[in-house]
Amino acid sequence: MIFYDITKERLIDVQKQITPFIHKTSIIHSTQIDALTETKLFFKCESFQKTGSFKIRGATNAIINLCKHKNPSGVVTHSSGNFAQALAKAANNFGLQSWIIMPTNATQSKKEAVVNYGGTVVECEPTLEAREKSADLICQKTGAEFIHPYNQVEVIEGQATCAMELFNELNDLDYLFVPVGGGGLLSGSAIATQFFSPKTKIFGAEPLGANDCYRSFHSGTLIPMEKPQTIADGLRTSLGSLTFPIIQHLVNDIITVEEDEIIQAMKLFWSRTKVIIEPSSAVAFAAVLKSKNSIAGKRVGVILSGGNVDLNNLPF
Amino acid sequence: MIFYDITKERLIDVQKQITPFIHKTSIIHSTQIDALTETKLFFKCESFQKTGSFKIRGATNAIINLCKHKNPSGVVTHSSGNFAQALAKAANNFGLQSWIIMPTNATQSKKEAVVNYGGTVVECEPTLEAREKSADLICQKTGAEFIHPYNQVEVIEGQATCAMELFNELNDLDYLFVPVGGGGLLSGSAIATQFFSPKTKIFGAEPLGANDCYRSFHSGTLIPMEKPQTIADGLRTSLGSLTFPIIQHLVNDIITVEEDEIIQAMKLFWSRTKVIIEPSSAVAFAAVLKSKNSIAGKRVGVILSGGNVDLNNLPF
Repeated sequence: MIFYDITKERLIDVQKQITPFIHKTSIIHSTQIDALTETKLFFKCESFQKTGSFKIRGATNAIINLCKHKNPSGVVTHSSGNFAQALAKAANNFGLQSWIIMPTNATQSKKEAVVNYGGTVVECEPTLEAREKSADLICQKTGAEFIHPYNQVEVIEGQATCAMELFNELNDLDYLFVPVGGGGLLSGSAIATQFFSPKTKIFGAEPLGANDCYRSFHSGTLIPMEKPQTIADGLRTSLGSLTFPIIQHLVNDIITVEEDEIIQAMKLFWSRTKVIIEPSSAVAFAAVLKSKNSIAGKRVGVILSGGNVDLNNLPF
Repeated sequence: MIFYDITKERLIDVQKQITPFIHKTSIIHSTQIDALTETKLFFKCESFQKTGSFKIRGATNAIINLCKHKNPSGVVTHSSGNFAQALAKAANNFGLQSWIIMPTNATQSKKEAVVNYGGTVVECEPTLEAREKSADLICQKTGAEFIHPYNQVEVIEGQATCAMELFNELNDLDYLFVPVGGGGLLSGSAIATQFFSPKTKIFGAEPLGANDCYRSFHSGTLIPMEKPQTIADGLRTSLGSLTFPIIQHLVNDIITVEEDEIIQAMKLFWSRTKVIIEPSSAVAFAAVLKSKNSIAGKRVGVILSGGNVDLNNLPF
């Protein structure tokens, strides 16, 4: 099934063109965690990715594509999280200016990270309306192009390369677990699975407190997330109009996990592997732990989306 | 200079014989940390080693050697830290029983880790006298052999293999920074440097609150550590009679760091690399940060000794 002209060949091209600007991240495993879960688990560690998350993949692809077809003065996005840093860094790699619309209540350290990567922070009220208005205004004033954190074809294509790398090293995975917020990573991974590892079953992992994907998936209608309540800050966003149909058609199921399961999974992973993963990544591992009985004896891939945590505000 | 018949050829043999039982750990680098320090830093990550620290190297070598010359029923040591887990695991690999003398005030999680690796925990009062007496008693009762956490030739040889792996991948390091507690890792690294990378200058890194190595090194007399006060729990032990002469002859200097420097270094490393290092490892990185002016522009190796931290009791 082809969505938005994203073919197998197109994804191979995307992977080639973003390769110089990203890390090929490690896949790690843990004998102790395998024993605990009675599975073979392979963790794709986007914690180690440039800017600390997978977001640089989609940001880079979007910018390369933009530069091919237009001559932009810069790029604009709204994000208080990992896409903010990723777009600032990716723009900087191509000598473009970037304006990142961030809510006034975003933490100082996140704003500083954007500035360190060469971006300009534009503050706005913490509402969807305010950030869209701010973005429009910047675009009009500067001639910069808007890039969406997840609901954009080039971004989805870029995020697909993470699972492609995984399948390139492991061609016999029974299952793949991927966290889902806006759905860029999950939809990209689902397309990659379809083309490069079609026997692998793919599951989205979502916090119960931000379960719009679960509800949309099972009702067949896109239901936006209102008032998400979860420690997994990367997964509070609503599923997108472009990512939802891909997920609906290509993903096997969505597994929701509770807050204490996320925190326990994060702590277990840190203590056994010594790799820092952020709560959004821990959601995928928590879903694996929850699914223990149904995946026993299987080979399971897990995409750990990032490692940006606030060390001054840990849940343990 | 040859200490205790530890020749270059002997170390190559040791490395061969322990290889099946240990991980060859990753060497990581960080563009951001390089920019900050104006050096090229290469971190040898023993956080990722089996049992979470380098200690498994020496424990394994000691046990292999023991089994060659004797037919022991088991092994005994006293340790409340990383050597406890390492010896339990190494003994288990060779089908030997292990008895680990631990002070009554050792944390429950550390005791559990020993038991998980197949060891038997023997509790004693938290004094040197009590633990030595307990160890003697177990040896007499069971016929098991005592293995010292650091002041034993086979243990020093095993610990040397960490720097050997580093030099095997990087043959042009200007400096090497190694944390020092009892001195097993530092003395082993110093011997490895002498044989495999003689142009590299080697520095010990020590907490100011447990600076017996600094004081011994500069006075020329072994001064035991009384009442160490540092967060770096792995470095509270006193330098050994066997490790001290090696350090005195082969190490270039000892650099001491304060508690806040250790904590800041640990936090910086976690946030930039997403790799968990324990405070004892952070001591080596803190010494690098403190030496910034004198190592600018150089290629610097740093041995990060382990990643076992109590996540319920972090200093930030």
